[in-house]
Amino acid sequence: MLVVMQHGAASAEVDRVVSVIKEMGYDARPMPGAQRTAIGVVGNDGRVNASRLAALPGVQEIIHVTKPYKQVSREWKPESTIVTIAPGVSFGGTDIPIISGPCSVESEEQILEAAHAVVAAGGTALRGGAFKPRSSPYSFQGLGKKGLELLALARRETGLPIVTEAMDDEGAHIVAEIADCIQVGARNMQNYSLLKSVGRIGKPVLLKRGMAATIADLLLSAEYILSEGNSQVILCERGVRSFDPSSRNMFDLTAIPTVHKLSHLPIVGDPSHGTGIRDKVTPMARAALAAGADGIIVEMHPHPDNALSDGAQSLFPDQLATLVEELRAVAAAIGRRVTPSPAA
Amino acid sequence: MLVVMQHGAASAEVDRVVSVIKEMGYDARPMPGAQRTAIGVVGNDGRVNASRLAALPGVQEIIHVTKPYKQVSREWKPESTIVTIAPGVSFGGTDIPIISGPCSVESEEQILEAAHAVVAAGGTALRGGAFKPRSSPYSFQGLGKKGLELLALARRETGLPIVTEAMDDEGAHIVAEIADCIQVGARNMQNYSLLKSVGRIGKPVLLKRGMAATIADLLLSAEYILSEGNSQVILCERGVRSFDPSSRNMFDLTAIPTVHKLSHLPIVGDPSHGTGIRDKVTPMARAALAAGADGIIVEMHPHPDNALSDGAQSLFPDQLATLVEELRAVAAAIGRRVTPSPAA
Amino acid sequence: MLVVMQHGAASAEVDRVVSVIKEMGYDARPMPGAQRTAIGVVGNDGRVNASRLAALPGVQEIIHVTKPYKQVSREWKPESTIVTIAPGVSFGGTDIPIISGPCSVESEEQILEAAHAVVAAGGTALRGGAFKPRSSPYSFQGLGKKGLELLALARRETGLPIVTEAMDDEGAHIVAEIADCIQVGARNMQNYSLLKSVGRIGKPVLLKRGMAATIADLLLSAEYILSEGNSQVILCERGVRSFDPSSRNMFDLTAIPTVHKLSHLPIVGDPSHGTGIRDKVTPMARAALAAGADGIIVEMHPHPDNALSDGAQSLFPDQLATLVEELRAVAAAIGRRVTPSPAA
Amino acid sequence: MLVVMQHGAASAEVDRVVSVIKEMGYDARPMPGAQRTAIGVVGNDGRVNASRLAALPGVQEIIHVTKPYKQVSREWKPESTIVTIAPGVSFGGTDIPIISGPCSVESEEQILEAAHAVVAAGGTALRGGAFKPRSSPYSFQGLGKKGLELLALARRETGLPIVTEAMDDEGAHIVAEIADCIQVGARNMQNYSLLKSVGRIGKPVLLKRGMAATIADLLLSAEYILSEGNSQVILCERGVRSFDPSSRNMFDLTAIPTVHKLSHLPIVGDPSHGTGIRDKVTPMARAALAAGADGIIVEMHPHPDNALSDGAQSLFPDQLATLVEELRAVAAAIGRRVTPSPAA
Repeated sequence: MLVVMQHGAASAEVDRVVSVIKEMGYDARPMPGAQRTAIGVVGNDGRVNASRLAALPGVQEIIHVTKPYKQVSREWKPESTIVTIAPGVSFGGTDIPIISGPCSVESEEQILEAAHAVVAAGGTALRGGAFKPRSSPYSFQGLGKKGLELLALARRETGLPIVTEAMDDEGAHIVAEIADCIQVGARNMQNYSLLKSVGRIGKPVLLKRGMAATIADLLLSAEYILSEGNSQVILCERGVRSFDPSSRNMFDLTAIPTVHKLSHLPIVGDPSHGTGIRDKVTPMARAALAAGADGIIVEMHPHPDNALSDGAQSLFPDQLATLVEELRAVAAAIGRRVTPSPAA
Repeated sequence: MLVVMQHGAASAEVDRVVSVIKEMGYDARPMPGAQRTAIGVVGNDGRVNASRLAALPGVQEIIHVTKPYKQVSREWKPESTIVTIAPGVSFGGTDIPIISGPCSVESEEQILEAAHAVVAAGGTALRGGAFKPRSSPYSFQGLGKKGLELLALARRETGLPIVTEAMDDEGAHIVAEIADCIQVGARNMQNYSLLKSVGRIGKPVLLKRGMAATIADLLLSAEYILSEGNSQVILCERGVRSFDPSSRNMFDLTAIPTVHKLSHLPIVGDPSHGTGIRDKVTPMARAALAAGADGIIVEMHPHPDNALSDGAQSLFPDQLATLVEELRAVAAAIGRRVTPSPAA
Repeated sequence: MLVVMQHGAASAEVDRVVSVIKEMGYDARPMPGAQRTAIGVVGNDGRVNASRLAALPGVQEIIHVTKPYKQVSREWKPESTIVTIAPGVSFGGTDIPIISGPCSVESEEQILEAAHAVVAAGGTALRGGAFKPRSSPYSFQGLGKKGLELLALARRETGLPIVTEAMDDEGAHIVAEIADCIQVGARNMQNYSLLKSVGRIGKPVLLKRGMAATIADLLLSAEYILSEGNSQVILCERGVRSFDPSSRNMFDLTAIPTVHKLSHLPIVGDPSHGTGIRDKVTPMARAALAAGADGIIVEMHPHPDNALSDGAQSLFPDQLATLVEELRAVAAAIGRRVTPSPAA
Repeated sequence: MLVVMQHGAASAEVDRVVSVIKEMGYDARPMPGAQRTAIGVVGNDGRVNASRLAALPGVQEIIHVTKPYKQVSREWKPESTIVTIAPGVSFGGTDIPIISGPCSVESEEQILEAAHAVVAAGGTALRGGAFKPRSSPYSFQGLGKKGLELLALARRETGLPIVTEAMDDEGAHIVAEIADCIQVGARNMQNYSLLKSVGRIGKPVLLKRGMAATIADLLLSAEYILSEGNSQVILCERGVRSFDPSSRNMFDLTAIPTVHKLSHLPIVGDPSHGTGIRDKVTPMARAALAAGADGIIVEMHPHPDNALSDGAQSLFPDQLATLVEELRAVAAAIGRRVTPSPAA
């Protein structure tokens, strides 16, 4: 940490900063410059109370040199973490699983038809919401426990592992009984009660980036889960808010190599939410893979024009089959491989 | 709602859209244009499944004419809602309460000193976090229930009503036993489990705008609370994420007249989080008032350089006194009045 | 400047950075920390080639301590600059001029009617575009030189000084013959050819903030003008792009106290472009004044519903009169004064 | 265009809107709805003065159905435009040219070494700035005409066509004498004087997206060039401003399929500016290609740590060779081909 003094700060002010730093248990290293003095804080364990220093007279700003997260960082653990949600379905190695399925579980017929379509297309895992966070209280909120049971049925029929969302502590425990991987949605990325809950439960977690979360914020939220003892975390880029209405979100694929450099955790791409428009999903899935994504999660509905939620961004079953084929070609071009369907 | 067809869409495609609209129970009104056809959906009750229409062949886009929220809108209830959190402390009328206090409750001595400073400065209510959402799991997380008891003690000593945050359903019930107004923080603005919980509890709620929430999103989150039967909601503008690192957030004061036009709910301004920098707090509190804010919430700490959280944006007690004085002058200039301290 | 080394950088890498810094003519001050080494660059004159250092092996990042601008900064010149565009019309002191008029000059009748309405309302200067930057090539592009002559006529008739925009070097010379203050629009904030041109011309310049310009970018653009020898620069906050479609731009009023702290130049607020919606203009003009603006620039059209451009954000003449009255009250509340009309 | 009336607008207000629409020469088609009335404007040629309608009493908002650009749209010209800047170097077909070279031309030795490195790596065209727009007036501003002559020399030596930037009308004419393609930079995307100038000159133009430009803004700026009779325009995605400091810009690759749907013009990706960080350039170049880019423009410097500008994002020559090889593999996977070096 570096404390930058104002141009012309009095030497008594510099001295006070130095003495406060020492009082906090660190070493202070003043660096008088041509235009101003800066004071290094040495021995910083990452938990220095910057606010206290920033509030001292003569201080212009505090510059953080060390990242505020720890266990998620590649400096802490250099080798990549591999998260396995079911036998043969791992994120973070050479293979790239494809998670697909409808936005919401709507009925037994719909989810079974969807699951069979995922297998037919060559997908690796099944997604589908039983508990749905919706911006409007008047939108379809999901089937709840009944939806989870239908997901379990689909798994028995197809062998596909299940990824589904939880919205609060109580829900997380219910979801954990059935799901192979618990999803924490973008709106809940900083719901710390929920993060601690899924951290304690210990099942694999798919953590989606919040709508205006920086990569540092995303990693700090993952740190909440790891700090509870659960390192089975898959991050997910799903687009952020932007000024351009031409797509629903701005799909920030640079997040993928950025996360790979800063953290040992795997990261997948969600082109369905990342773009919000059906005909953008396939090119952007290819792009996510080419950027280095460790998996793709994509919405598919057996009958998108009857979907109760997010129909306009859901692929048709035959579009999913084409997408998987194209992803196989791109993966081969960069020395990776799409994970085969577990049922196959 | 308006369904815009692609340039050159076949008339069979137009016919299919019309028939789907009718199948959904609405009237369809095609408008052939020079460049393309648009089809009006008449009789729309605000719950049309747009995704289904967007997914039909030949459809270019769906344009929403009616807002997706209802009970929070001024069209639904033209007269302004006045939310009273304690006798003499109301939001939404001519008077403008000033809520102040530290970011976190840290100790009995600190919160009592802060509460007395609020009264001395002319403030109207006391804020202070007992449960703190922090980006890092290693930051101070608040004193919990003990903090709530200290807030109750400060109220007994000074008469100031209490505004404090809850982070989940369980916490909301605990907070509700003591607080006069339950705060839902920016990170939890779309935590729908929490919104439903505070909706059912029925106490006044201070709902902060999320970091990348549009005004429509904020109103939809408030709609969750109202749809549970609780209309005692105070909205809060506290800055949004932007590309400019020169302040911690971008304080969007236009949100104030925008909310006043769209909704009957009161809205307050939080210049402490809105700017994140102590010397910007006073001018931006004045600006919020001049823009029409129904209250001001501002951080003050008896000793900011010892604060355990957010010290750099907390005012010193004498700065709060100056701020209240300046707000009184601006309020008078626009025909309003700063609410006197209840203890006075 | 601070060069932060990677965790575990080899000491040979640290040595190489030190020797490159010395080769560049500065002193290097290594600071070994608990987690990594940082190296201070001492004697930095603000022109160090950071890219060269960033590219060295083992370097994680470069942190800039000194701001990249110089002559615009308050450290360079502590006292506020007062820019006088006509006798009695100064920006940066206690008095607050109000610049008003139509988006575009459309006809003799229109601009004269507008100028008289500005005087009647108590405004201080006349704005109106002769050269108009429009997003679409098919929109009205302004009357050009003819428009400038009409502005000169309006000045003769009313005594109001003229503020009008230039779009390129040639246009700037033409505008300078007539205008009292040359406006550089938001789209041209980083048109460095134009900035140098108005710097050399030497007339007062109103420099609008670009749509995604940080405060540092705005100050750097002003630095281009000052570095040509022209310090008569008035900055203008006019809203930036955001994710929220509820207003045309996000009006960033915190820019006002931020500029006042960093720079000696005056800054005015433009609530017309800042919000883009007529009924938000008056509250946000009040807010800008309360935030400390050194002037207000606001669109008014004698007949907004016939306006050839930006009609929906232009005030009616009687709304301008009300606005001036309200600004007088707010100005008085904060110890300032609206500049009287020069014609009065 | 659709005029949406306020809830409860009087029928006289509706009538007035209808009569103004007719007065403007269009047909009006009122659509009374359950909650409000909307009025369709039929016969709209894309040039309706929306402001005038928005300003009428009772009008809530104006919704544009037709896009404001015309000649750049795929509706206007369904087949893709192919822009050829030199024999064998075309953008918009199956082949994908790779443009590379340093940020700035610095010396004869540097640009020749760079050009030979581009050929050796398998690149197709040479970039290099002679006129440089720099945020700070104190940064290196380019060699000007001398730089252009050095680019011509490099072309004679290697056969690579030249892409270089112009900043104003005068500069555009100078650049046009030598360059094969004139670049308009992000900061000048809405410099309409420059756009008209390069439109009239008639040479191929590489138009970069502005820092906060929507896709519609980018297309409107291209429309300025086409409306002057020059359809040889290559668009360029180079990242936009965002809230996340983890990369210099946010590289919006969804822009590529979005442009392909809306427009017949080709679009290339610039991962150097799009990310700003050397080790992100290669994965994001791959991603741009996989998203459908019609070309890649990437900075390479023979000795990045001595570069006078943007060194930290420039590739080393051997990194460029690896990048081209990886792009060839990805291109083959999606049925396209990297254009071979013209010299080869």
